[in-house]
Amino acid sequence: MELLEETLKSIHEADKGAIKRAWERMDSLTKPIGSLGRLEEIAVKISGITGEVKNKINKKNTIIMCADNGVWEEGVSACPQELTATITDNYTKGVTGIGVLSKNVNADICVVDIGVNADFNNPKIINKKIAYGTKNMAKGPAMSREEAIKAIEVGIEITDELIKKGYDLLGTGEAGMCNTATSAAVISALGKIDSDLIVGKGSGLTEEGFLNKKNVIKKAIEINKPDASDPIDVLSKVGGFDIAGLCGCFLSAAKNRVPIVIDGIISCAAALCAYRLNSNVKNYMFPSHMSAEAGAKYVMDEIGLKPCLDMEMRLGEGTGCPLQFSIIEAALAIMNNMVTLTEASIEDSKFLVDIREK
Amino acid sequence: MELLEETLKSIHEADKGAIKRAWERMDSLTKPIGSLGRLEEIAVKISGITGEVKNKINKKNTIIMCADNGVWEEGVSACPQELTATITDNYTKGVTGIGVLSKNVNADICVVDIGVNADFNNPKIINKKIAYGTKNMAKGPAMSREEAIKAIEVGIEITDELIKKGYDLLGTGEAGMCNTATSAAVISALGKIDSDLIVGKGSGLTEEGFLNKKNVIKKAIEINKPDASDPIDVLSKVGGFDIAGLCGCFLSAAKNRVPIVIDGIISCAAALCAYRLNSNVKNYMFPSHMSAEAGAKYVMDEIGLKPCLDMEMRLGEGTGCPLQFSIIEAALAIMNNMVTLTEASIEDSKFLVDIREK
Repeated sequence: MELLEETLKSIHEADKGAIKRAWERMDSLTKPIGSLGRLEEIAVKISGITGEVKNKINKKNTIIMCADNGVWEEGVSACPQELTATITDNYTKGVTGIGVLSKNVNADICVVDIGVNADFNNPKIINKKIAYGTKNMAKGPAMSREEAIKAIEVGIEITDELIKKGYDLLGTGEAGMCNTATSAAVISALGKIDSDLIVGKGSGLTEEGFLNKKNVIKKAIEINKPDASDPIDVLSKVGGFDIAGLCGCFLSAAKNRVPIVIDGIISCAAALCAYRLNSNVKNYMFPSHMSAEAGAKYVMDEIGLKPCLDMEMRLGEGTGCPLQFSIIEAALAIMNNMVTLTEASIEDSKFLVDIREK
Repeated sequence: MELLEETLKSIHEADKGAIKRAWERMDSLTKPIGSLGRLEEIAVKISGITGEVKNKINKKNTIIMCADNGVWEEGVSACPQELTATITDNYTKGVTGIGVLSKNVNADICVVDIGVNADFNNPKIINKKIAYGTKNMAKGPAMSREEAIKAIEVGIEITDELIKKGYDLLGTGEAGMCNTATSAAVISALGKIDSDLIVGKGSGLTEEGFLNKKNVIKKAIEINKPDASDPIDVLSKVGGFDIAGLCGCFLSAAKNRVPIVIDGIISCAAALCAYRLNSNVKNYMFPSHMSAEAGAKYVMDEIGLKPCLDMEMRLGEGTGCPLQFSIIEAALAIMNNMVTLTEASIEDSKFLVDIREK
């Protein structure tokens, strides 16, 4: 609890002076004001995080929280529960979607077992297991309040460590059967929205299975009566260890003034929890793609974020993050390397091609 | 005319066999089918272009067609006409938006004077000047039919040369005062749409200036009566050398079976002309961002393309292209480096971080 409390107290606003200086530079570059749209906003937002007008990313990492969910026994997933362990293990082999996309942009990943229902004999998986999965939220709370806090603190610790190692741009990914169900439950509960409007199909459910998923989530919320004003209560009653862990990642990134990227619906649910715990966290968050799951739009609207990417992606794993890393680096290149009128004497034309040179 | 005719005859369909094989591999990778959305579609589309399931981009280039427009004298731009020449010159210095974004992704640019109202003493600008700008389309045709064909052929020649030099992913950019006006006129004429629905504000116009721009474009279309079924007639009467040149770039890329990216509204107008000349061109085109100009959505819908990026960008220059290059390379990484179940023994975990290693 101490780590969470200290972290929440150490999250501050963006640096308004740096933002002002960053907009001054951005608006003085040789282009119509505002004409690079969200690239401009991203570069300036990073200035508000670091306090510097010009910034460079040195090391990028997507943190992947893996956990099982007791609600699996209600048949809300089309997949066997063992798949969580298989995917967690595969992450360490570099051949999954997040692994391939990360390598493509020279980014790393960090795989955390925060509650998978299996034991691993794999030194590349960080063991922070809180339990072998949560309890079935359709019958009672998914976890205790203490476990929820512990899971958040795992996310804080992991992220604190990565930042100490020099990572200065982070992403958030996950693996866990039924975590689109827990995410929908968390977003519905926090937003006091009819869960039928938020629940998505996830991967591979039939229409009948989808109806069952909706009913199970409705039941979980009715039985547990999570307190919408208390994100930890919501996380413990209808959340998962993965969502709680990622919530901690967002809090740590904000505390350490490091930008962090949101991926799909699970990451969105975690981002909303972090935002409700301390609204300043939004100044450190960057959306990536707009998830096809309905709850994602709710979260983006409440926090006030607009994704740059419309990819119809629904793999999860954190796969939106490396794509967004490229956009963030493009935004920083604009701020760093475009010139103002007064700088316009600088020349560098090595990249220019003259097709007449043969 | 010969080059254009030969080019149009040499544009063929995508390789359906390669597309089939590419989907077979994509659907056998270790992820739910379809879960990487447009990344999957992009990778498979590239297979249809090259005939190979796995592809790698070696050299990237955004071609920038620069030209002036006679309609400038009607006051449809907030900027002095001389700015076209200044911007064209600045492109060769590497400090403009397109220069910075290109270098950020290791891409080159190619600057072409296809009709700027100035002489350059700059060996880095390729001189393919057809005239010192077009004529005023509000008073008669912007150019002759012969000039329109010549401009298209300039685009074909430049692109043929770049592809000979090994460029295997291309982008399309431009500079030219009033080219949002000519682009709106071209799209309205080809689509038989009321131009008031297509004309955008461009850069820095007042409400009064915007009204004037709408009236001038309406007048240009009324006076010239471009034939909607004849893209060359439309280009010559209400187009520009830049749009015609970029139309040629799209045609050459399709002929040579090389992917080419669309940027903003000017590039969209050129893409629509190329598509109307030979609809197979669409198999070689990739959208980047959705331009804020209304005509862009019309073009995307007619050709059947969906941009991945929503950036609120309106700089032009080709700035959407290097951003899309990153997404295309991410898509190819998925196809090349994710594994199928049968390949799952491959291991490569250098990228993985163990935070316990100190």
